Amino acid sequence: MHDFERKLITEWRRLELPVEGKIVVAVSGGADSVALLTALEKLSADGKINLDITAAHFNHRLRGDESDADEAFIRRLAASMEIPLAVGHMKGAGPGNLEQNARDARYDFLQSVSENINAFALATGHTLNDQAETFLQNLMRGSGLKGLGAMSPSRAFHDGGDEGGFLLVRPLLSWCLREETELYCLSRNIDFRYDSMNEDLRFNRVRIRKVLLPMLKDFNPQILQTLGRTAELIRSQNQGQPKVFEIPENPKVSELKIMAESDLETFLREWVGTRRGGLRGVGRAHITAIANLVRSEKSGRIVELPGNAKVVKNRGRLIYTVEMV
Amino acid sequence: MHDFERKLITEWRRLELPVEGKIVVAVSGGADSVALLTALEKLSADGKINLDITAAHFNHRLRGDESDADEAFIRRLAASMEIPLAVGHMKGAGPGNLEQNARDARYDFLQSVSENINAFALATGHTLNDQAETFLQNLMRGSGLKGLGAMSPSRAFHDGGDEGGFLLVRPLLSWCLREETELYCLSRNIDFRYDSMNEDLRFNRVRIRKVLLPMLKDFNPQILQTLGRTAELIRSQNQGQPKVFEIPENPKVSELKIMAESDLETFLREWVGTRRGGLRGVGRAHITAIANLVRSEKSGRIVELPGNAKVVKNRGRLIYTVEMV
Repeated sequence: MHDFERKLITEWRRLELPVEGKIVVAVSGGADSVALLTALEKLSADGKINLDITAAHFNHRLRGDESDADEAFIRRLAASMEIPLAVGHMKGAGPGNLEQNARDARYDFLQSVSENINAFALATGHTLNDQAETFLQNLMRGSGLKGLGAMSPSRAFHDGGDEGGFLLVRPLLSWCLREETELYCLSRNIDFRYDSMNEDLRFNRVRIRKVLLPMLKDFNPQILQTLGRTAELIRSQNQGQPKVFEIPENPKVSELKIMAESDLETFLREWVGTRRGGLRGVGRAHITAIANLVRSEKSGRIVELPGNAKVVKNRGRLIYTVEMV
Repeated sequence: MHDFERKLITEWRRLELPVEGKIVVAVSGGADSVALLTALEKLSADGKINLDITAAHFNHRLRGDESDADEAFIRRLAASMEIPLAVGHMKGAGPGNLEQNARDARYDFLQSVSENINAFALATGHTLNDQAETFLQNLMRGSGLKGLGAMSPSRAFHDGGDEGGFLLVRPLLSWCLREETELYCLSRNIDFRYDSMNEDLRFNRVRIRKVLLPMLKDFNPQILQTLGRTAELIRSQNQGQPKVFEIPENPKVSELKIMAESDLETFLREWVGTRRGGLRGVGRAHITAIANLVRSEKSGRIVELPGNAKVVKNRGRLIYTVEMV
């Protein structure tokens, strides 16, 4: 199995998505969506999953001949893969924001296709790059906590009615870099299209991608993953989900210091429990003492725990040690 | 009263800080802390507040003669203002991170000065620029929601003991641009010092200030305010405070769509209540119907409310109208 396909099916399981049934895959013609379509089809052909795939393409006609060439390309692609294809066209330009109208019309089309074939989900090829770009765009706009949650890898598609509906899934969103989709297409010998609007620096989105993100990469080579993870944290907090802490062996005091009171105590309980293999003999007073140690600006303090154990700060980290007797 | 002083006292009241008593002002010699010291002294001299100010300067000795010149400058400044001054010196370099050790030693010193004179607060001159830089630094580090809350304008200074303690206040943090502190010093004819390390692009912090933030300003001229407000939102959510919504006349559907279910209903209740002057006759079912309207991808839908009122979507916004009969 190709590495890309393995990662895709791992994410499919993580998101607890159905492994059989009807699904619509939105295909623009770019490497992202073409890679998603190709990999899902390959995984189905190999019997790893059992999806009944319909491709859907919406021709916005925003780029004249280029848009029509995209459509022709996708018609050939779907035919060669023997996948049914639904194509929609933009019907004239309504009043208001052109880009927003095009987006609305595309989602109206994708929704009607999904409903018509009674699909359990509509899948799009958004990648970690798209997620980081959305996060930054919303951050700079000041769109608040909801906007900083960026896109969800799997959510209910609300159609405003009371009945069922389907899922909107983005199985590349949480892990896949845009370049990985291009490499996958190349390795499977599948062609894809470039969108000339992706090079136009008049668009904020393109400047974020081409100018801002490369600069942020100078500060942190893993910036896409970092921003994606941050959006995920904010989304989970927006939804009021319980927090999940990573428990390092020697947590950094500077990171603990800025935690909210209750979070710090929850964290310390998990940390001490992990270090000791359980919380027997450790009470609230011990946890509070460690929290005070964390916040203390002074050095040289020690918190003693039952069983000759102690917690100290050393070089900015919290250390748990047991004295050998 | 100078505009800077008026804004400072407005923030002082917003933070509900005591207007009389002993306070320690940390002074580095830069425009930020010199402006804060000068304005607080002026406000006290004018009887607007009644603070008993002690200045405190910590000489890290990281920059040799420049550090000593800073100290000499502050000694002259405090003497000319007739403000008592406490000066501390870095005692040799311990093991570990130089910058972190210097910071720890500075806070140990500032804490002991505050405790010695029994001050109700320690005040620092951090500005909105510092806040935005801290936010971006933590964002790029991936330091999680606690780090994205950045600095607090007023919080308890924990010393690890059980007793009282004092406040750490940053009365310039939420509103004041660094350049405003320079302009204020100039207008009051007060000199200040430049820190040569602020020009050294080897420091991440300096690159954030000199390269990244100017680029972000191209996307949003108000980026400092936007990032400061975002940090505040995250801090308030970290602390589990109730959310406060701004209620625009015609809210953007795209912003409502990404709200969590319960937030959206809270928002819609406040919005409808504001539009109608109360919620009489409006039930849960009406609010749910508007929430469905928000999430609907279809256009042309209407939610009717008692009293010939209706809610529609138009050009991406929610509109409340009352039909004249």
